[in-house]
Amino acid sequence: MLIPVILSGGAGTRLWPLSRELYPKQFLPLVGERTMIQDTALRSIGLPDVTAPIVVCNEAHRFLVAEQLRQVGVEPRSIVLEPAGRNTAPAVAIAALAALSGGTGEQKVQGGPLLLVLPADHVLTDIAAFRRAVAAATAAAREGFFVTFGIVPTRPETGYGYIRRGAGQSAVPPVAEFVEKPDAARAQAFVESGNYFWNSGMFLLPAQGYLEELGRLDSAMLTACRKAFDGAQHDLDFVRLDRAAFEACRSDSIDYALMERVSGVLMAEGDFGWSDVGSWVSLADIWPKDASGNASRGEGLFLDSRNCLVYSPHRLAAVVGLRNVIIVDTKDALLVCSKKADQRVKEVIEALKKKGQKIYL
Amino acid sequence: MLIPVILSGGAGTRLWPLSRELYPKQFLPLVGERTMIQDTALRSIGLPDVTAPIVVCNEAHRFLVAEQLRQVGVEPRSIVLEPAGRNTAPAVAIAALAALSGGTGEQKVQGGPLLLVLPADHVLTDIAAFRRAVAAATAAAREGFFVTFGIVPTRPETGYGYIRRGAGQSAVPPVAEFVEKPDAARAQAFVESGNYFWNSGMFLLPAQGYLEELGRLDSAMLTACRKAFDGAQHDLDFVRLDRAAFEACRSDSIDYALMERVSGVLMAEGDFGWSDVGSWVSLADIWPKDASGNASRGEGLFLDSRNCLVYSPHRLAAVVGLRNVIIVDTKDALLVCSKKADQRVKEVIEALKKKGQKIYL
Repeated sequence: MLIPVILSGGAGTRLWPLSRELYPKQFLPLVGERTMIQDTALRSIGLPDVTAPIVVCNEAHRFLVAEQLRQVGVEPRSIVLEPAGRNTAPAVAIAALAALSGGTGEQKVQGGPLLLVLPADHVLTDIAAFRRAVAAATAAAREGFFVTFGIVPTRPETGYGYIRRGAGQSAVPPVAEFVEKPDAARAQAFVESGNYFWNSGMFLLPAQGYLEELGRLDSAMLTACRKAFDGAQHDLDFVRLDRAAFEACRSDSIDYALMERVSGVLMAEGDFGWSDVGSWVSLADIWPKDASGNASRGEGLFLDSRNCLVYSPHRLAAVVGLRNVIIVDTKDALLVCSKKADQRVKEVIEALKKKGQKIYL
Repeated sequence: MLIPVILSGGAGTRLWPLSRELYPKQFLPLVGERTMIQDTALRSIGLPDVTAPIVVCNEAHRFLVAEQLRQVGVEPRSIVLEPAGRNTAPAVAIAALAALSGGTGEQKVQGGPLLLVLPADHVLTDIAAFRRAVAAATAAAREGFFVTFGIVPTRPETGYGYIRRGAGQSAVPPVAEFVEKPDAARAQAFVESGNYFWNSGMFLLPAQGYLEELGRLDSAMLTACRKAFDGAQHDLDFVRLDRAAFEACRSDSIDYALMERVSGVLMAEGDFGWSDVGSWVSLADIWPKDASGNASRGEGLFLDSRNCLVYSPHRLAAVVGLRNVIIVDTKDALLVCSKKADQRVKEVIEALKKKGQKIYL
């Protein structure tokens, strides 16, 4: 049995001013008609032998999550609320505990539930390829392996970690190495080699095995998560983790805390038009462009301008004589940013925090 | 007797989207606390031996003109309404007719009223220097000369016409030549020579002499203006020119129609911090700048950006990694424009007209 685990912890600060603390990017219809969490949920329930998803989210977003899933007819298995963000390793531990708490004898005979961990804010365009990758990963995970999804790189991206594929002809080969974000030259070499894949943050894991490995590698984290889950308040809609216990938990990513320290991790190759929509530039890559390479949502008017991105649903935006500029207009804040500098949007948020201008965060 | 003639005919299209057809730049507080037409009126009534100003404006702007002058306590001699724009030569002819229509015997003994023609949308920063230039020009105009104001150039501007000063040591020397907008190399040579001045569009003219020369050079224009003025409707606030007569009048500038064709025109040198605020770049020159050369009105937040201009009174505007970009945010339209391309803002307006998007004009 496959249980989708939708992680909705991202703050999406690099998509400011559209993405806000209280309304991050997974709740926005940035690519299609639906929001990214809606697409993620629909994609997950379309898989074979799958249950309704477990969603792990910040408690401040609980009504957004519940309402957006309701809108697309997805009734989650549970919505677990984090009182604070502790990164992905504890979130997946909580999901594993939730998955096993509803366990039946039948599931245990089959080796227990498998978790398909899906960040809520990723875009995939080739759903058939996604289903093939999940099927391959499921077969491996059924044998007890931890599987990470490695994305076939389409450009020498320096903003992602990479996975080096190990030897063998298997559809789900072993991971030889996890590699930190490279510089441009290394990224170029990675792409050319054909042996390196983007570390997507998507995983397929046996729930029981995950908890066992976590207990072995970081028993304090597992203990904190157990306490938070066992002490949770349940109501009809939400599972509220115990605040003190969860806040006491160490914050770490599933990659650092587990995947890079567990031996025998496998990688399912993913070539399904993946994007983490991690920046305005990555969104510019997804949106359709005019003959001059300009992409716009809302009313953009381009004059002697190339490769610009405009998001302006409320106002006419006239762009004159510019190249590679990102323009994002929201009701109370406007961003005008060089594409080269789009990773610095985070610094705007830091500057606003320093100035006490919380209203824009 | 000196009668200020404030010409409020400009559309200010190069300052779109702030300046609009129904609210052009002379009615906006772009530089100080007051609007440009208010500053122009106050500047004029502070001169010696001066009457209240005659204002010539588009009839659509009549309440704006009347209210803005009322706000600063200037009661105009008359507000003459043009049913359509016909450029400056007819506007000054109308003002001359208005000036003479109220004439008394005493004025005629002194050679009749002099008109100080002032565009409503210019900025001057050195009022004392302005008064000195007007005094010198007045003395010359009393002798019957047409006087144009030539501005000491501060940069090799290619957007203005130039005036070459003739020989002689007079404070108000003869004009040797009017020169069309030069290319960059010629403009540079002009500035270096010290003999060339910007053609400001400000004049000091004997009202009677102006009409006589106009009758000699373009009797049809004079006839049309006379008909429009004689057929005007007068009420307590406004003088409404006869529509059919004025619409039949040829459109031309005072420079082309008269100044360049009349012999013996003199030039008063002006070095009074003049700007016609003819573009966003010229406004960027006037506004105070931070250490990185960025100028802003409203809430601008600059990160790794230089020499940018931001007008954003309603929204936070974050500017990241940009150089020489103009950002103008209004309630319904946003302009993001390279400083190099700021003369092309007019083309945005043409594009909007073509698309039928009158709402933004």
